[in-house]
Amino acid sequence: MLKILECVPNISEGRDADIVQACCDAVRSVAGVTLMDYSSDENHNRSVLSFLGAPEAVVEAAVRLAKTAAERIDLRTHRGEHPRMGAVDVIPFIPLRGMDTAEAVAYSRMAAERIWAEAGMPVYYYEDSATAPHRKNLADVRRGQFEGLAEKTLLPEWQPDVGQGYHPSAGVVAVGARFPLIAFNVNLSTEDVTIADTIARTVRASGGGLACVKALGIKLHSRNVAQVSMNLTNYTVTPIYRVVELIRAEAKRWGVHIIGTELIGLTPMQALADSAAYYLQLEEYDFDRQVLENYLLEE
Amino acid sequence: MLKILECVPNISEGRDADIVQACCDAVRSVAGVTLMDYSSDENHNRSVLSFLGAPEAVVEAAVRLAKTAAERIDLRTHRGEHPRMGAVDVIPFIPLRGMDTAEAVAYSRMAAERIWAEAGMPVYYYEDSATAPHRKNLADVRRGQFEGLAEKTLLPEWQPDVGQGYHPSAGVVAVGARFPLIAFNVNLSTEDVTIADTIARTVRASGGGLACVKALGIKLHSRNVAQVSMNLTNYTVTPIYRVVELIRAEAKRWGVHIIGTELIGLTPMQALADSAAYYLQLEEYDFDRQVLENYLLEE
Repeated sequence: MLKILECVPNISEGRDADIVQACCDAVRSVAGVTLMDYSSDENHNRSVLSFLGAPEAVVEAAVRLAKTAAERIDLRTHRGEHPRMGAVDVIPFIPLRGMDTAEAVAYSRMAAERIWAEAGMPVYYYEDSATAPHRKNLADVRRGQFEGLAEKTLLPEWQPDVGQGYHPSAGVVAVGARFPLIAFNVNLSTEDVTIADTIARTVRASGGGLACVKALGIKLHSRNVAQVSMNLTNYTVTPIYRVVELIRAEAKRWGVHIIGTELIGLTPMQALADSAAYYLQLEEYDFDRQVLENYLLEE
Repeated sequence: MLKILECVPNISEGRDADIVQACCDAVRSVAGVTLMDYSSDENHNRSVLSFLGAPEAVVEAAVRLAKTAAERIDLRTHRGEHPRMGAVDVIPFIPLRGMDTAEAVAYSRMAAERIWAEAGMPVYYYEDSATAPHRKNLADVRRGQFEGLAEKTLLPEWQPDVGQGYHPSAGVVAVGARFPLIAFNVNLSTEDVTIADTIARTVRASGGGLACVKALGIKLHSRNVAQVSMNLTNYTVTPIYRVVELIRAEAKRWGVHIIGTELIGLTPMQALADSAAYYLQLEEYDFDRQVLENYLLEE
């Protein structure tokens, strides 16, 4: 099966369009890599790029992006609302097809070695690539931000995994493999955000609910609607339909119902097919063999 | 967008594995064509192949298949339960990606001209390629079968669209473009086939039910279960979920429910995504932009 790796790096620049374009161009310069999307947030002063392709090409594109970011972005003068510690701040590698997590971890290590050698940015491994439990969570790895690196990188428990110290203007970068994440929201027939928040606390993993679900209740002021806003971190463990049906059941407790849902950004086909198979009650359904497009993606 | 054409020819040989393999090899011999599946029915003495690829390559494979079938299959001695008129009996071309019906029709005409020139088999255009209303339906085009061709091809209204008369041993072939067809069955919580048959008559287009649905009630003897067996001839007009929900509603009338459903063979992923979007109540869902795999299939 064709191997496809996705990469969704965040860079610490969301205001200067020239620099964002230079980073996009670095990605596009690699043959066989598709830049699917990029978006900038001025308040955060940060941009997200997403691209995919054969794993070697994606690693090459990530390295070129890191070099461009390290050359063009100076964190000593960077201001923005979002925490950050590197010119390219975090580089997740996501195994999309024909690869398991272990293989994506191996590619993340290839990228990290080259980013240190060619861009001069030390690397912390995080998520599935983490070398210790306290380095798994990105928020922990990034605590203290760029300004705290001088102190942090002297601590024995916070030595970078690759390289030493930190790049004087570009800082350090978190690199790691993770499963495809689905950003999914459920809108309720109420404007009472406390109901959405109560439901969010019930369904999320940290509240004893469904594994691989992060959730919080928010108010959509534009529509005067309360929403359960979620990240589903592994749709093979907790499929979308199970989240919807549990929220539907919990909502009844408060006399409200689901008025609609939102899928933000990109979703792997299988996440939708699995939900279709549930609702249609498909017997013995084989996604790999029965979805036509899978044959187009074979090597 | 990448153009992908599918072809699902039926050949009049289901017993001699050598001949079936020779036909498969003819398809496989074209670079860029993927033979996804083939299956033979001994009673019907007939095999179905399915393959796909870039349109030009698929046309080339269909022509090579027709030449091999015309050389190896002799309808003068062919016996089987399924009606047939040609060594390769019918060649449907199905626009899967980046193409509309008109473009698939144009490729079906390219194939037909070459099949007459290179395999010596005259062609009737059918379905979306038909040149007259009475030639649209394959059953009408094939009426009288191979044995009736001497008489039929003399009738002014049944002159072949391409070529004249018929090939003495290989007959004639129906060639045409059609929309992807979904073979879909719904199993009921009853062994009473009259209930399945009553529901089938209600939901199918010919009974005043849903457009683009062909249905009949059958008994699954292996499971002692009654089934509504269907072909959905255009899932963009009548999506799978609508068929399921209508059958669910009709089944209640008889005190039965859906115990499971079956998707036979291959399905375009959009047919599943559309049903997932319905049941998940997705707002503003954009299949082309939000399903990751679509980016892998771009040119």
